[in-house]
Amino acid sequence: MSGKKKRVGGRVKRQFADTATDVPPGTISVDPNAPKPVVTVIAYGPEDVKEEQVTDIESLAAYFEKWPVTWVNVDGLGEEETLVKLGHVCKLHRLALEDVVNVYQRPKTEHYDEHEFVVVRMPAMTGRFETEQVSLFLSRKFVITFQEKQGDVFDEVRKRIREGRGRIRTTGPDYLAYALLDAVVDGYFPVLEEYGERIDAMEDEVAGHPQKGLIGRVHAMKRDLLALRRAVWPLREAVNSLMRDETPFITKDARLYLRDCYDHTMQIIDMIENYRELAAGLVETYMSYVSNRMNEVMKVLSIIATIFLPLSFIAGLYGMNFNVEKSAWNMPELNWAFGYPFVLSVMCATVLGMLFFFKRKGWLGRSEIDGGDEDEDDRR
Amino acid sequence: MSGKKKRVGGRVKRQFADTATDVPPGTISVDPNAPKPVVTVIAYGPEDVKEEQVTDIESLAAYFEKWPVTWVNVDGLGEEETLVKLGHVCKLHRLALEDVVNVYQRPKTEHYDEHEFVVVRMPAMTGRFETEQVSLFLSRKFVITFQEKQGDVFDEVRKRIREGRGRIRTTGPDYLAYALLDAVVDGYFPVLEEYGERIDAMEDEVAGHPQKGLIGRVHAMKRDLLALRRAVWPLREAVNSLMRDETPFITKDARLYLRDCYDHTMQIIDMIENYRELAAGLVETYMSYVSNRMNEVMKVLSIIATIFLPLSFIAGLYGMNFNVEKSAWNMPELNWAFGYPFVLSVMCATVLGMLFFFKRKGWLGRSEIDGGDEDEDDRR
Amino acid sequence: MSGKKKRVGGRVKRQFADTATDVPPGTISVDPNAPKPVVTVIAYGPEDVKEEQVTDIESLAAYFEKWPVTWVNVDGLGEEETLVKLGHVCKLHRLALEDVVNVYQRPKTEHYDEHEFVVVRMPAMTGRFETEQVSLFLSRKFVITFQEKQGDVFDEVRKRIREGRGRIRTTGPDYLAYALLDAVVDGYFPVLEEYGERIDAMEDEVAGHPQKGLIGRVHAMKRDLLALRRAVWPLREAVNSLMRDETPFITKDARLYLRDCYDHTMQIIDMIENYRELAAGLVETYMSYVSNRMNEVMKVLSIIATIFLPLSFIAGLYGMNFNVEKSAWNMPELNWAFGYPFVLSVMCATVLGMLFFFKRKGWLGRSEIDGGDEDEDDRR
Amino acid sequence: MSGKKKRVGGRVKRQFADTATDVPPGTISVDPNAPKPVVTVIAYGPEDVKEEQVTDIESLAAYFEKWPVTWVNVDGLGEEETLVKLGHVCKLHRLALEDVVNVYQRPKTEHYDEHEFVVVRMPAMTGRFETEQVSLFLSRKFVITFQEKQGDVFDEVRKRIREGRGRIRTTGPDYLAYALLDAVVDGYFPVLEEYGERIDAMEDEVAGHPQKGLIGRVHAMKRDLLALRRAVWPLREAVNSLMRDETPFITKDARLYLRDCYDHTMQIIDMIENYRELAAGLVETYMSYVSNRMNEVMKVLSIIATIFLPLSFIAGLYGMNFNVEKSAWNMPELNWAFGYPFVLSVMCATVLGMLFFFKRKGWLGRSEIDGGDEDEDDRR
Amino acid sequence: MSGKKKRVGGRVKRQFADTATDVPPGTISVDPNAPKPVVTVIAYGPEDVKEEQVTDIESLAAYFEKWPVTWVNVDGLGEEETLVKLGHVCKLHRLALEDVVNVYQRPKTEHYDEHEFVVVRMPAMTGRFETEQVSLFLSRKFVITFQEKQGDVFDEVRKRIREGRGRIRTTGPDYLAYALLDAVVDGYFPVLEEYGERIDAMEDEVAGHPQKGLIGRVHAMKRDLLALRRAVWPLREAVNSLMRDETPFITKDARLYLRDCYDHTMQIIDMIENYRELAAGLVETYMSYVSNRMNEVMKVLSIIATIFLPLSFIAGLYGMNFNVEKSAWNMPELNWAFGYPFVLSVMCATVLGMLFFFKRKGWLGRSEIDGGDEDEDDRR
Repeated sequence: MSGKKKRVGGRVKRQFADTATDVPPGTISVDPNAPKPVVTVIAYGPEDVKEEQVTDIESLAAYFEKWPVTWVNVDGLGEEETLVKLGHVCKLHRLALEDVVNVYQRPKTEHYDEHEFVVVRMPAMTGRFETEQVSLFLSRKFVITFQEKQGDVFDEVRKRIREGRGRIRTTGPDYLAYALLDAVVDGYFPVLEEYGERIDAMEDEVAGHPQKGLIGRVHAMKRDLLALRRAVWPLREAVNSLMRDETPFITKDARLYLRDCYDHTMQIIDMIENYRELAAGLVETYMSYVSNRMNEVMKVLSIIATIFLPLSFIAGLYGMNFNVEKSAWNMPELNWAFGYPFVLSVMCATVLGMLFFFKRKGWLGRSEIDGGDEDEDDRR
Repeated sequence: MSGKKKRVGGRVKRQFADTATDVPPGTISVDPNAPKPVVTVIAYGPEDVKEEQVTDIESLAAYFEKWPVTWVNVDGLGEEETLVKLGHVCKLHRLALEDVVNVYQRPKTEHYDEHEFVVVRMPAMTGRFETEQVSLFLSRKFVITFQEKQGDVFDEVRKRIREGRGRIRTTGPDYLAYALLDAVVDGYFPVLEEYGERIDAMEDEVAGHPQKGLIGRVHAMKRDLLALRRAVWPLREAVNSLMRDETPFITKDARLYLRDCYDHTMQIIDMIENYRELAAGLVETYMSYVSNRMNEVMKVLSIIATIFLPLSFIAGLYGMNFNVEKSAWNMPELNWAFGYPFVLSVMCATVLGMLFFFKRKGWLGRSEIDGGDEDEDDRR
Repeated sequence: MSGKKKRVGGRVKRQFADTATDVPPGTISVDPNAPKPVVTVIAYGPEDVKEEQVTDIESLAAYFEKWPVTWVNVDGLGEEETLVKLGHVCKLHRLALEDVVNVYQRPKTEHYDEHEFVVVRMPAMTGRFETEQVSLFLSRKFVITFQEKQGDVFDEVRKRIREGRGRIRTTGPDYLAYALLDAVVDGYFPVLEEYGERIDAMEDEVAGHPQKGLIGRVHAMKRDLLALRRAVWPLREAVNSLMRDETPFITKDARLYLRDCYDHTMQIIDMIENYRELAAGLVETYMSYVSNRMNEVMKVLSIIATIFLPLSFIAGLYGMNFNVEKSAWNMPELNWAFGYPFVLSVMCATVLGMLFFFKRKGWLGRSEIDGGDEDEDDRR
Repeated sequence: MSGKKKRVGGRVKRQFADTATDVPPGTISVDPNAPKPVVTVIAYGPEDVKEEQVTDIESLAAYFEKWPVTWVNVDGLGEEETLVKLGHVCKLHRLALEDVVNVYQRPKTEHYDEHEFVVVRMPAMTGRFETEQVSLFLSRKFVITFQEKQGDVFDEVRKRIREGRGRIRTTGPDYLAYALLDAVVDGYFPVLEEYGERIDAMEDEVAGHPQKGLIGRVHAMKRDLLALRRAVWPLREAVNSLMRDETPFITKDARLYLRDCYDHTMQIIDMIENYRELAAGLVETYMSYVSNRMNEVMKVLSIIATIFLPLSFIAGLYGMNFNVEKSAWNMPELNWAFGYPFVLSVMCATVLGMLFFFKRKGWLGRSEIDGGDEDEDDRR
Repeated sequence: MSGKKKRVGGRVKRQFADTATDVPPGTISVDPNAPKPVVTVIAYGPEDVKEEQVTDIESLAAYFEKWPVTWVNVDGLGEEETLVKLGHVCKLHRLALEDVVNVYQRPKTEHYDEHEFVVVRMPAMTGRFETEQVSLFLSRKFVITFQEKQGDVFDEVRKRIREGRGRIRTTGPDYLAYALLDAVVDGYFPVLEEYGERIDAMEDEVAGHPQKGLIGRVHAMKRDLLALRRAVWPLREAVNSLMRDETPFITKDARLYLRDCYDHTMQIIDMIENYRELAAGLVETYMSYVSNRMNEVMKVLSIIATIFLPLSFIAGLYGMNFNVEKSAWNMPELNWAFGYPFVLSVMCATVLGMLFFFKRKGWLGRSEIDGGDEDEDDRR
């Protein structure tokens, strides 16, 4: 248990660690345990592509001059020096750089004079829902992306650049930025698919035979959907303001594409809200299942008591030891020749009467209020 | 069970299949299992109508020149070549064409320089609620509609064109686009009617005798209403932006008609929200019915216990085997001449006393808190 | 039962009948079962009033020329010819006329070049809440109103015109239109009063002695309030847009009066939302009453069981037939001289002990959690 | 009971009485049972103050000419003549005067050419929450206030005028209007304080020992908070539009003060929403308390049944009268020398076994799910 | 108990004390029990810093002339004279000064001609959530802050000024104001962290073994989160209007930094809403746990009754005293040689039959609907 608490506490702590209040704004306070930055450059034009890993940050300036589009990707944020140099060479604003390092930003788009700065969160579906911060700078010559660690959803974009598929090689950095954002946005669909399947499974479970811990699992999913929503709502705003703001870095043509990307975020939000409502409905349905179940138990209990308590009373009655010989008033039945059969008959009559009463009440036969098995047919 | 899961899983999967992240934007990636496209042209002017199935896409250009209005309808999206050709001949934007093929778009209106592009979802009430995507291009000369498969709600429009009823033959493609959108919107009314009747039936059921699986059915209906809402809310926005945006393709006159169409979407949304609230109220009412039922069971149980437990105790008391002969203190009642009648009288008195107590508590007579049969009268 | 279903189904059907998809827009498809139209004209100026029933529609044009203000009222929509003629003489837009006939419109204001077109819903409190559509055309010379059937809330306005009370005779058609709208809006107040009284009664009932079917009645009222809300929210928008839109048909002075009318709709909406919240609170309070009741039943049950089960056990114990003569270990109590009094004492002690236990638990005395009678005092 | 119903019905009726539909707008239909108007004038300038009760309405005109600021206060609305005269002398708009008399207006600000017209509701905490309508006219020379009856929250303002405290004597009527509005707004704070204390008390009660009728009291408070909210939300709008609208009657300086007043309404709204959420939380907490209580009762019941039912069975078993002498198979235990001790041992073992079972289940010891006494410590 | 009530009542009272209605606006009515003001000045420029405690308020004017930026910090509001003098020397608006002293303001930004006035609430996590009001005046030359008592979150800013770290020494008072606001905003993160950890702990508790008073603790936390929300929502508005309003006191550069601060408030609001939803989910989950628990108790009860009631009845049956010798019909079983074994067999058969019945019902084995221990694994 304590092990778990530590884990959870750790999660909370991590989430706030970056908002340290003891440093002046604009300070780039790297987390020393984070992976060291690995800088990769992909520069391309309509004709050619060059791709290499870079260690001398200063050499980047040459790329910007020579190539129409340069994409600098930084994996890992664990070394201040590289980041500061990069900021200097590419003229990245200090406030933006600070946000790059503090990896718990809300998605947002910020306009600076020298560049647009976009923060998005890339989903990573590893058991429970988690996100990684991707920061993106867009200027007239380059796109710079920062990721917390290696491994991303950009491989397809890289392939398209290398192979010259689609329009990417003939367009500017704005289109590249769009392609990257779109890859991040599309990365949410598998996550949603996963949750969609979980909800479907849980709905089947509620309608059929709820397993142990269902409510706990629904609660955990609702928590994840909340986190998902917290990541995507501002993402939508970020894409929207990128699409609408007057910024010189994005051409009218790229805006058309961003509109497409915006549509996708809207679709994701629709799905999330949908799932949230379905999850809420699940709890409600489950609770009614529990109520019905309790009802059925009560019914069984009630039937048993109603049948056996009177019977037992009758039996007890004739187990009394009144002295039959003292008077003819004292339990004369005991001496009747057919006393026992008579009592048995009375008992049978009682049982039958009660069964008839229950029948009329509708307590026999299958429970009429039941969320159980045959349900599935109704739902088709 | 596993069969069902597959079906459901299949539904989820299909919904996301189109959002493949491994293709550049603007790629027209057709689903090879989808029906092959069948292209039908209806061209008309005030005087004349021509209607034919077209296989040579190139020949469409001639129509556009000769006729005032040409409506190209494509049923089935299962072949890339036809779609690409069509896109080329009619100058459809690649991004729009991509959306045509990815059939899980939200309803929307997008303005392109060469045409307006509208996506709507046409309802198909086949057991559970489902929608089919209808994409519509509107330019100065033509309307092009794409549907997933044959069979639609446009027959009435076709008839009006053929017979020259109404204003349709004397107006431009914008009026045709309106007529088609209106047909789609009106297609939601039978669906709503269906749900309205279901809710009425369920309300009667809750007030009368809830059948097995009611909660499951309500849950399923809420799910459908959610889907319906997801289809119609953006539809409203789409119609609204078509009506308000500054676009050269829609005349002032057609805007008046679109306002009418917009009113209809508002009416639909009103109904959906109404039904959603009624469904929520149903669950609440049902839960109170269950509570009342349990209450009644508890009452029966309680009455039985209250009556028979004391009686049984008295009977048990005189079933004890204390030796009456040892002393006059040992159960002298057993030797009384009227011991048995006396005990019976005590028992009767007990029962009567308790009945009186219950009467005062209001536990006898009909349950005063009951959601049952006579209810209906109250509701008139 | 089937009778009821038909009624309900009929209600649903009627609601959608007008949205037939098989007619071109602008078609005036009258319901042949509706009452035939009866056209009444009231024309007036500061000096004089003329009031008569009109059969020759063409003759209306003369009124428009001669009188400052002409009010044409049409009761009944069951004949196409009259309506079409009227539309022709008064230059009513076909789309608006179509809405006149399709009597399930949402309240709205639509501006046309020749006139303003307003649709409102007039309440009719006949057992359950129902509304009748009133359509109103306002131009510089006339006001035309269409009602589904005879009988309306306009009698007071007619009287004011005839008697020349207030400002109505000295103002234009815009003021008349305001007066009519205001009469419709004010018609909602008695309906609200009715619901207010019902809620008060139900609150008293919940606090006192809930009768059978309370939940059903609350549910029915919530349904009515939903319908009411659906009628009034768009009514507010309609009045507002009439008040604010730039239209040549309404003078600045009349706008002041419309502001007053708008205030009334706001007040109505306030009341409706208020009643909805109170109704929701009623259900909550009622459920807690049910819970408390069940709790009390459980308590009684528990007390009985706790008292009699041990007693019965003791009695049963000494009803065992062990052979006392075999050994001194076998139920020697049976042969004690004071065995029976001793056992009775033990039983008394048990009962007293348990009563003390219950006392401490607070289970005796009046239930401390009770939503019952004395409650009323607390609420003052 | 009927007495109460009448009271409540009376309340509802009063609320709608003013919306009579049978009078033309602008009619001043006074309630003949209302108190007769008493007109008081306070006129002041930086140097001097004059305060007197006025019966000749015409004489007011002289005040307006002579004094920089004149405040006419009218207590009681029960005489048409005075009001009409006042309206004539001060040029008050008829529509506004109508609203003055119909004392169930929503708070609002209306601009007329000759004056601003403000309606607010002054709280009166007399057992249950009630409000009195205060209407205020503001022009360049005077402020006129109308109240339903004598007694108000303006005494402090009067004192400030008389004593010349603060800025009031050196400023215009706009500042006076602000001072009066602010007094009304501040009048809500004691009401809120009262509710705050009630909620605190109820929270303590729920955590400790809920008294009878708690739910009823919470429900009554929620009803009051709803009414409070209905009075304050539009009040905020009224103050805001007074502050922001372009009106010649309010100077820039007075707007600064109105901003302060607006802040107070915001604070009040904050508190109300806060209290509403707390009240909702109270119900939730209370319901969980009831659930826990029922749970505990069930537990006691269950323990008793589990212990005594088997014991009674065993006792009953050896109370059977099988003929021991017929065979050695018939209840030989009865003739054992240690039969009775043996059975007692079996019973003890059973009890111990069950106690062990309950211990493991966690049913003994203090209930672990309990909303009871010790709770309070947890909440600090 | 009464002690507690007093405490609580005291809290309510304090909250409203400042809104006294008996003083003219602009009155600085200090709380005589508040700490006496201590005025500290930190004046700095790029080159130098001067820091000292000031008693002669008049001497402040010299600072404003000599130093680029002067920060006057006042701890304690318990003396009117100092505050009035300060207001005079620094030309602070009386209305603003009044708000400084009334320490229950909502956070807000107000523009005055001579300065911006910002009110924020600084969190103090001392057991239960509480806030202290910090008022800030910003002009071209100085920043003045007022705090209720000593001890704040500004130490880091002071250190940065002293040590010349970051940009603070080279920028104007607007940057200082930003730094102070940011310190206050960042002060909310530890509070949120605390609540995050509490929620995590409670979630673990609900999933595992709920302790006594859980619901009370959740309710208390929801109350705190409400208070937190009430502090932060207007804080966001305050920062936003500072960032967007046209004010000459804030440079374009400082606005960039304020945008950063605004992002932080958004993040805090996100967290609060998140926590609120999680807390609501907690209650739901807990209630389902209670329901399940009751269900299990009912099941145990039901099983016991179902097993022992029939058994006891059979035993009672053969405890009847019918006279066997009267006829062969009277309980002949008693004289059978194997009567007792036969009855025991019947009993065994009954038990087995019932166990089989329960097995099929799924009542034996582990409860399948259980929110208990093994849950945790499911949630990973």
